[in-house]
Amino acid sequence: MFSPQPVGYVRSPYKKTDEIPKGLGAKHEAEGVLEILPQFEAGLTDIEGFSHLIVLWVFDRAQGFELVGTPPCDNRPHGVFATRSPRRPNPIGLTVVELLRREGVLLHVRGIDMLDRTPILDVKPYLSSVSPELLRRGWLAEAEAARVK
Amino acid sequence: MFSPQPVGYVRSPYKKTDEIPKGLGAKHEAEGVLEILPQFEAGLTDIEGFSHLIVLWVFDRAQGFELVGTPPCDNRPHGVFATRSPRRPNPIGLTVVELLRREGVLLHVRGIDMLDRTPILDVKPYLSSVSPELLRRGWLAEAEAARVK
Repeated sequence: MFSPQPVGYVRSPYKKTDEIPKGLGAKHEAEGVLEILPQFEAGLTDIEGFSHLIVLWVFDRAQGFELVGTPPCDNRPHGVFATRSPRRPNPIGLTVVELLRREGVLLHVRGIDMLDRTPILDVKPYLSSVSPELLRRGWLAEAEAARVK
Repeated sequence: MFSPQPVGYVRSPYKKTDEIPKGLGAKHEAEGVLEILPQFEAGLTDIEGFSHLIVLWVFDRAQGFELVGTPPCDNRPHGVFATRSPRRPNPIGLTVVELLRREGVLLHVRGIDMLDRTPILDVKPYLSSVSPELLRRGWLAEAEAARVK
């Protein structure tokens, strides 16, 4: 395996977990900054050309993990690998953000759902999407349908 | 931070790096299996409802990292955070796969691009796509356009 090291930190408007929009239909329109550490700046070369980025980060304020849990948007329990729960065997979060602009080591982005000062593990270009017609969203689609009724 | 632990391993038709399709237009249609360790099986509850999964895994056969490098599909160097290079500060790979079926701890999937026996860090449901009209793909789109000429 390897020893995770932060390549930067998130600057987010959210200081506490309960400030982050959660559950069905939650919109993640918050703007924030991915602040990359100076020693990794060269790794950002040409990143400006991508409209969307995948950010991998650490749920650094989550404690332990839970294999089955009930998410905020449903009243039924689901397996951790079928949810985005923070309490995972490896506490890695994933967020797709829109890149608004770069200023040196600062990536200004939209779509932040992390807490302020969250350690960033990796940034990757978002290259392709699954076609919406092919996508099935399991219990989440059922929970949404149940709410609409 | 945290200590990464494998939650399972990939069973892949690719035994060596040079067998994996690379570069522009590479199709990842290979079928394989995500074999989850028995102690994490409960975490798979309800995963069958999702058509696509995001798999996070370790580039366990990559050595060190390179902040700027030339990918196989272009003749120009790019920053590591603008590529999917295996030689990353945190050697975490990401693959979107289609879930074909589950048999206990075995997830049969399509879209494998990992080597056989690759350690899996996490599996997450794929929940939404960026609309293709909104997606810009930077140097990769340029390299593709140059190849077509």
